Amino acid sequence: MDFNEFKKMHQKKVEEYIEKVILENKVNPPKQIESLIRTLIEYCLRPGKRIRPLLFLLGATSYAKKELDYEKLYRIAAVIEIMHCFLLIHDDIMDRSALRRGLPSLHVVFYEEFKEKNNNEKIGEDLALVFGDILFFIAIRQLSKLNLSSKFLEEFSNCYINTGYGQTLDVLYSLGKYKPDEDKISVEIARLKTAYYTFFYPFYLGVLLSNENIDKKKIEDAIIPAGIAFQIRDDIISTFDEKSGKSNVTDILEGKLTALIDFGEYDEKFFEVYSKQEKSSEEIQYILDQILKSGAIKKAKNAMYTLFEESISKIRKLDLNDTSKDILIDLISRLRSD
Amino acid sequence: MDFNEFKKMHQKKVEEYIEKVILENKVNPPKQIESLIRTLIEYCLRPGKRIRPLLFLLGATSYAKKELDYEKLYRIAAVIEIMHCFLLIHDDIMDRSALRRGLPSLHVVFYEEFKEKNNNEKIGEDLALVFGDILFFIAIRQLSKLNLSSKFLEEFSNCYINTGYGQTLDVLYSLGKYKPDEDKISVEIARLKTAYYTFFYPFYLGVLLSNENIDKKKIEDAIIPAGIAFQIRDDIISTFDEKSGKSNVTDILEGKLTALIDFGEYDEKFFEVYSKQEKSSEEIQYILDQILKSGAIKKAKNAMYTLFEESISKIRKLDLNDTSKDILIDLISRLRSD
Repeated sequence: MDFNEFKKMHQKKVEEYIEKVILENKVNPPKQIESLIRTLIEYCLRPGKRIRPLLFLLGATSYAKKELDYEKLYRIAAVIEIMHCFLLIHDDIMDRSALRRGLPSLHVVFYEEFKEKNNNEKIGEDLALVFGDILFFIAIRQLSKLNLSSKFLEEFSNCYINTGYGQTLDVLYSLGKYKPDEDKISVEIARLKTAYYTFFYPFYLGVLLSNENIDKKKIEDAIIPAGIAFQIRDDIISTFDEKSGKSNVTDILEGKLTALIDFGEYDEKFFEVYSKQEKSSEEIQYILDQILKSGAIKKAKNAMYTLFEESISKIRKLDLNDTSKDILIDLISRLRSD
Repeated sequence: MDFNEFKKMHQKKVEEYIEKVILENKVNPPKQIESLIRTLIEYCLRPGKRIRPLLFLLGATSYAKKELDYEKLYRIAAVIEIMHCFLLIHDDIMDRSALRRGLPSLHVVFYEEFKEKNNNEKIGEDLALVFGDILFFIAIRQLSKLNLSSKFLEEFSNCYINTGYGQTLDVLYSLGKYKPDEDKISVEIARLKTAYYTFFYPFYLGVLLSNENIDKKKIEDAIIPAGIAFQIRDDIISTFDEKSGKSNVTDILEGKLTALIDFGEYDEKFFEVYSKQEKSSEEIQYILDQILKSGAIKKAKNAMYTLFEESISKIRKLDLNDTSKDILIDLISRLRSD
């Protein structure tokens, strides 16, 4: 089976359960809030890749010795996607992003809904911040009802603590007045924000649920390189898209510490311009030129291919069942070449 | 025993455990983040009334039939205070409050620490938002290790879902262009944001931990009125302090829907001025005059006294042990007269 077939088998169910989990765990909202909860559900159900809940389900089937409780699995898969939505909501407030999954961000949706009724110009952000928190409370309430082991809940928490640290580094270094000279901090951010959060933990939480005796370290070593590689690839194509030949300047405007910054060599003037909160179109062009000249793309690509290969060869050696192994390797091969 | 003696017995231990819980559950932060975690611990340890963790401990002793596990109790008490700090951090970002517990708010502390190193003018708010989330993840991680019942975790979640709804109503109605005409929404906000969050749930979670067979409804009926009364009292004295004779205009500037707005009768012009994002000193004086003329203070006070009495008489009828009953009634009597 390949990853797309696996996705087709489960995606609808996951989405059904996202709605179900929110509706069953919203407790008893005041009547003035019911419409905001509807908005929240629609936000969570926007088309997305659902890679985290799918990896969770794949993890659960990979080492299972007995029949799986799909009711429970879909509820946790939904919780993982709900947690993702909560983080996206807060992320968009921080980045002042106006769009998410091709539609207005939640704080923009709320602003449009309430700007006529309320004089608080930050009404959208304030409501989105609280509703992010509420999504989290709802997710925890669902988990509390599933009789999960201490170990599962502890690893679940570890996942989000690490993600929070990755997010913190991202905020600290975006628009930072520094010259990266020692460790590759972009790799550390990719490890925490992408490799752990999007790849390793969802899969490992699934494994843990079906079999608590599997060696965590081996799975971590096999999956983390692909996660870092995926983020490096994303850093490259989100600035230079070779297929379309276009360049996108969002990361540059936000002064993000991406692989393109870490893998190139730049002088002080470059970093001074890169960390400016406002950049002119000449300055943006200057940054794009410097990145192209620096050889960063080639170096980053080499690192990326090596990491993808490392992952695939380590996954081959894991003792998960053959179907799951095929699906996982198919997913990673797609990520590499998409 | 009175409430102050009870507080003296436990406060130091709760504070010790706040630090312990954060240090033991921070997992493995990148070295660049260690200093921010220190800042976070200092923030949580700022002098505060600690009413929530103390009520939790009181709840646990009120119906206990066997000896209590104080190690576990202090850890949960610390989690309850940590959750409070997480909500205060997000609250201050929303209200743009510069002060918390007599010192700069967390987003101000972070801004001061990083403004020289980073060109993001929102750096303080962005870091505080993420660090609020991280505190929450740390709290959940601690809970996951305490072998708590499903019922306890579910009620724990209910507490914060309700608080989130109260916060949502507060945001929706602050600076809102409306004329309250039907239900007293300020009472609903007080019920969710104060009565449940500060009084009922901390106490009830303690009860639940030591004895799962106690009737929730009876405790709720007894404690909720005092919680609402406390918020009404706070709404009054945070605007008109009879002891000092001074008036404070924070709620007016923020256009909060307080008891003073709900219990008075005002014309359309009043609401138009009240909901303005910027108010001149003449407009503030006009609002203060209108509130004084409206008779709102007297009506709100009457409601408050009735609610306090209702609580005390219902608590007398609860079958918790005598020492705990004395402490609880002493606390509520102090809240009424402080």
